[in-house]
Amino acid sequence: MMAWCSQPVRGVLLDITGVLYEGGSTVPIPGSVEAVERLKASGIGVRLVTNETSVPVGHLLKKLQGMGFKVQDKEVFSPIPAAIRVLQERGLVPHLLVNRMVEGEFAPLLPPAAPPAPPSCVVVGDADQAFNFDNMNKAFRALKGMADPVILSLGAGKFYRHHGELQLDVAPFVKALEWAVSGAKVEVVGKPSPNFFLSALSSMGVKPEEAVMVGDDLEGDVGGALGCGVRGVLLRTGKFTPAWENHPTITPSLIGVNLGEVVDELLG
Amino acid sequence: MMAWCSQPVRGVLLDITGVLYEGGSTVPIPGSVEAVERLKASGIGVRLVTNETSVPVGHLLKKLQGMGFKVQDKEVFSPIPAAIRVLQERGLVPHLLVNRMVEGEFAPLLPPAAPPAPPSCVVVGDADQAFNFDNMNKAFRALKGMADPVILSLGAGKFYRHHGELQLDVAPFVKALEWAVSGAKVEVVGKPSPNFFLSALSSMGVKPEEAVMVGDDLEGDVGGALGCGVRGVLLRTGKFTPAWENHPTITPSLIGVNLGEVVDELLG
Repeated sequence: MMAWCSQPVRGVLLDITGVLYEGGSTVPIPGSVEAVERLKASGIGVRLVTNETSVPVGHLLKKLQGMGFKVQDKEVFSPIPAAIRVLQERGLVPHLLVNRMVEGEFAPLLPPAAPPAPPSCVVVGDADQAFNFDNMNKAFRALKGMADPVILSLGAGKFYRHHGELQLDVAPFVKALEWAVSGAKVEVVGKPSPNFFLSALSSMGVKPEEAVMVGDDLEGDVGGALGCGVRGVLLRTGKFTPAWENHPTITPSLIGVNLGEVVDELLG
Repeated sequence: MMAWCSQPVRGVLLDITGVLYEGGSTVPIPGSVEAVERLKASGIGVRLVTNETSVPVGHLLKKLQGMGFKVQDKEVFSPIPAAIRVLQERGLVPHLLVNRMVEGEFAPLLPPAAPPAPPSCVVVGDADQAFNFDNMNKAFRALKGMADPVILSLGAGKFYRHHGELQLDVAPFVKALEWAVSGAKVEVVGKPSPNFFLSALSSMGVKPEEAVMVGDDLEGDVGGALGCGVRGVLLRTGKFTPAWENHPTITPSLIGVNLGEVVDELLG
C-alpha cells in the first residue's frame, strides 16, 4: 500500500461516472464541480479517465459542460479513441459489439461493403441493450471464424450504478465470449490497462508517483492505478460496495466520502 | 484413454441434439431412428441424456416420437427435472433465467407473490432470446442480493449448432454472471456432472464400465463420460469441430461418422 501523503501531488486522474455524477443522473454529485475547479486553480493537473463507452466522447463532454464542469476535449481519456488507434496501428478489421450511439465513431475503420473483408477482431464496448442474444451470437461467430481470435475490451468493469441500480458492464460479456471461443485473447483498452493511465499522465508531464487516481471502482480505478505506481483513492459514491474496504489484495491509499472531501484533504 | 472394446456394452447413453437430429431440424439424422431400434432389439439398455432446456421434456419427447424414435418418458434424462429435485431438496427459492417455454415447469417452486420471498439461487437454462440485457441484469441483481450467491447451471455447454449455425449455449452466460458477482458458486445440473450420467445408468442397472456415451460435444458428452468411468464416443455430426480430434486433455474412446455407424461397430 502506498501512503496517501507520501509525495506531493502534481496531477489528479478522475473517473467520471460515480465520481463527477451518478450514472444516469443529469446533475453533478454535490461539491464535485467546485472540487475540479479548486484542483485546477491550485495548479494541479487534472485529467478525466473514463471507461464510459455508451456515448461518443463529444456527447460526454457536452454533458459534463452542461452540468457546469469546466473541461475540454484534450482533458478526457476514453477507450474509444484509444481502441481506434490500436485498430489503425495494427490494421485490424473490427466486428463491433458496441452501443449504437458509438458505432459511428468506428465507421471510418469498417471495411467497404464489397468486397467483404472478414473481421480480425471483435470490439466490445458498453453495448447496453445491444447485449442481446443475436448480437452475442454474431460476435461469437465472428470470433470462431478467426485464426487468432482477438477481443478488444473497452474497459474491464464488471458493473456500474445506473439510475440507482447496479447493471452489468462490459467485462462479464467479454468473459462470456472468451469462455465460448477457445484460444480467444482479450486485450483491454481503457482502465485498468497501465498504458491508459500513463498516457493521461504523460499528457500533463506528470510522473506516476506524483499522481493520484480517484474512482468508485476498486479494481478498475484503484487497483489499476496502484498497479502502475499511482496512488489510488476509492470514493463511497457511485458503485461503492462496503465489502471493498476489506478486499484481500487491493488496499486503497485512501477511502473518501466523495470527491469534494478528498480534494479538501489534498489541498488543505 | 479407455479402449473402445475393453468390455461388453450393456447400456448406451445418447445425447439428443446433434446425435438423433440436427439442432433446429425436424427430421432425424439418417440412420439414427434405426440405430436406436437396433440397440434396443439387441437387449442393450438405452437412455437419452440431454442438456436441452429450451423446451419442456414433454415437448422434446413428442418431437422425438414424431420423428419416429420409439422412446418413452422414463428414458429421457434432462436437467430440468434434476434441477427441480435439487431446489426441492434444499428448499431453494429460484430466480429464473430460462426459456419462456420452460418457465411453467418451475411454477410450483416459485414463492407466492405475497409476501415476497427473496430468491436464494439463480437457475440458468438455455434461455435463447431471453438472454437479453434486462434479464441478465435481473439475474445479476438477484445474485448480488444473496448472502451466498448460487447459480444452478442447466448444463455446461459452450455452444451448439442450430439451423446450421453455431449459437451460444448456457455456459458463457453463466460465466458472465459468475464473473460479475464475486463469491458466486456455480453448480452444474446435467452433463458433465457425474451424478447426471450415473443416475441414467442406475435406472438401467448398468455400471459405468459397462456403458458407452455417444455425443457431439467433446467436453460435456465425452469428457463428462470419461470422467465417471464411462466410454465416450464423439460423433462428427452436430457441433463437431475438427480441432477436437487433437484436444490436449480429452481423447474420445472412438470418433464415429454418425450414430448409425457407431451402432454398426458396436453390434457387428
